[in-house]
Amino acid sequence: MDKVYYFDNNATTRCAPEVVEAMLPFFSERYGNASSMHAFGGAVAADVKAARAKVAAFLRCEPDEVVFTSCGSESDNNALFGTVEALGPDTTVITSAVEHPAVLEPCRWLENNRIRVARIGVDKLGALDMDAYRAALSRPGPKLVSLMWANNETGVVFPIKTCAELAKAAGAVFHTDATQAAGKLAEVDMSDVPADMLSFSGHKIHAPKGIGVLYVRRGTPVRPFLLGGHQEKGRRAGTENVPYIVGLGRAVELAREEIDNGEVARVARLRDRLQEGLLRIPDTVVNGDPAHRLPNTLNISFEYIEGEAILFHLSDAGICASSGSACTSGSLDASHVLRAMDVPFTALHGSIRFSLSRYNADADVDHVLATMPGIAKTLRELSPYGRK
Amino acid sequence: MDKVYYFDNNATTRCAPEVVEAMLPFFSERYGNASSMHAFGGAVAADVKAARAKVAAFLRCEPDEVVFTSCGSESDNNALFGTVEALGPDTTVITSAVEHPAVLEPCRWLENNRIRVARIGVDKLGALDMDAYRAALSRPGPKLVSLMWANNETGVVFPIKTCAELAKAAGAVFHTDATQAAGKLAEVDMSDVPADMLSFSGHKIHAPKGIGVLYVRRGTPVRPFLLGGHQEKGRRAGTENVPYIVGLGRAVELAREEIDNGEVARVARLRDRLQEGLLRIPDTVVNGDPAHRLPNTLNISFEYIEGEAILFHLSDAGICASSGSACTSGSLDASHVLRAMDVPFTALHGSIRFSLSRYNADADVDHVLATMPGIAKTLRELSPYGRK
Repeated sequence: MDKVYYFDNNATTRCAPEVVEAMLPFFSERYGNASSMHAFGGAVAADVKAARAKVAAFLRCEPDEVVFTSCGSESDNNALFGTVEALGPDTTVITSAVEHPAVLEPCRWLENNRIRVARIGVDKLGALDMDAYRAALSRPGPKLVSLMWANNETGVVFPIKTCAELAKAAGAVFHTDATQAAGKLAEVDMSDVPADMLSFSGHKIHAPKGIGVLYVRRGTPVRPFLLGGHQEKGRRAGTENVPYIVGLGRAVELAREEIDNGEVARVARLRDRLQEGLLRIPDTVVNGDPAHRLPNTLNISFEYIEGEAILFHLSDAGICASSGSACTSGSLDASHVLRAMDVPFTALHGSIRFSLSRYNADADVDHVLATMPGIAKTLRELSPYGRK
Repeated sequence: MDKVYYFDNNATTRCAPEVVEAMLPFFSERYGNASSMHAFGGAVAADVKAARAKVAAFLRCEPDEVVFTSCGSESDNNALFGTVEALGPDTTVITSAVEHPAVLEPCRWLENNRIRVARIGVDKLGALDMDAYRAALSRPGPKLVSLMWANNETGVVFPIKTCAELAKAAGAVFHTDATQAAGKLAEVDMSDVPADMLSFSGHKIHAPKGIGVLYVRRGTPVRPFLLGGHQEKGRRAGTENVPYIVGLGRAVELAREEIDNGEVARVARLRDRLQEGLLRIPDTVVNGDPAHRLPNTLNISFEYIEGEAILFHLSDAGICASSGSACTSGSLDASHVLRAMDVPFTALHGSIRFSLSRYNADADVDHVLATMPGIAKTLRELSPYGRK
């Protein structure tokens, strides 16, 4: 394959070579079952334990609050279904209009099964309607809040610490989908934020696809989602995916280093340069509040043209980007996130998400900035809206 | 680590080097998201499609009947919860007393939520009570059957083709947990057996831990279990675990070759030699019908001594075996499978499972046969039952 300019890191990331190296011995050499009673399995259990301690250090929580799952979506499903089961049929679920499908779809299922769901809206910048949130929290009865820490499409960051504090004050259980925030924001710190549950996924932080975490604060009322064996202290059945668990342990170490050593800030500067350059193209607008946004994400609309056409032209130039979420691709609907933000029709369908990582360099940004003006010009010449 | 004599392949297997080789490019090179719209992701989608075709060839079904999951347990949870949801609250679930916890526990949950569950017993050889099964099928109303193809602890094989035919004649939906049977029995053939759903797991057939399959025959009433994105045609959310999916594709090719080229028969001869040698130790008895048993499994009781003590001594000699299932280890209860078979008390607690694979050689069996008599003698000298 020709050189790839990869700007789709909110969809998935390249596995770090350090992560692959950490995993490799666990496929064909240290392949025991961590739940087995022999020393060969027991040695592997120690590696799982060490990885759990690394994830706990990353989240600043206790190791026994870390449950390994198969993905962020499973973590979200577990948090929602498991808590509503524990709290009972009178539960109100409070969530936002811009969540990932892994939260939206369980909420829809719960609603179809007679659970009240309150969806809090956002403003034009993607900020949560805090008045509506407070009002929802004032409802009587058991409540579960599920709010994403950062939006996968726009990168907009919700004030999760405040939201969690309000929820706790109202007696609600608080879950956050931190799939996009973990590894990018120093604020993801369970010793500081009183969230009861937090989901994240390995493959957004250079671990493989197929491993996730559900953080569960001690004492949180949540039932297991995947039932069967005694793994994960009875909280998640299924033989432990040892290689990926070990890989995730290495990935969170690297992520923490990047937050601490200025790498995340370097990526933010790269993103800012990309944004500045693309905004020189006429009729472009950034979606989402630049003041409260992930350091790696740029969602930008090229008005009067179609996002999919842009993506195909970018792909021809070796550039990987995205329109909205990979998890909703295949759908012809416009992004539910941008619609919730009331993005105008002319901009709604021409939105592109560029999402960066440690593996992006200045030359990648140069290539996009050299390529994108021509694509916009070509497509606008073809556009029925007649803007050239 | 010193040389390991690995006889715990029903717990988990060594990843085949061919599988690791197939997976490796998908971590740090071909790392795109299979659901992305760019060519880089699209190429990966083609690899997922190729792996799906390999699994379909292995099961002798259509590719669109293959759903990739994170493990056999998830497949079982999906089959049970998803079908009962589709069939409604009047459903009767018919299962056996000797299923894996990934079926038993969902059944217990369903029962606690007012779904009728009929558990069919087994005889002393572990054979299903077919009269009781027929009687359960004669109940009115919607029915879901879930019967394991082969037992993980004893290797006893149920007559799944007959069971599925009876279920279909009675209008029931039929699921089988084939986690231990797939790759070992040529009869696992969806063009011949009218099962509606089948679960299996990669890590029992030399693919990694963390990948499973739920086969779903076209038209089967089953709802998704993990809700969210559009992956797997809306049947299983979560970013596709591309490396493991590709690895599983390679693993099923190897498994099919082994069934066809006599390797499975070689393993059976090895197992038979192990059995014959161990039966020379006084007061030993094989659990499970030798005439209807997996080719790789030997469950044998050493009367009057404790299985755990045997395991520790075996482990000291580098031998990995198991008492019952890794998925129930940590529990002090005797095996529910052996109890259902009315194995006498003196033999119940001294049962050991030896499970072989392609990687076992004659020398491994020699080592067990040289080691085990001494262990039995030593432990019996210490036994409060006084048998020497």
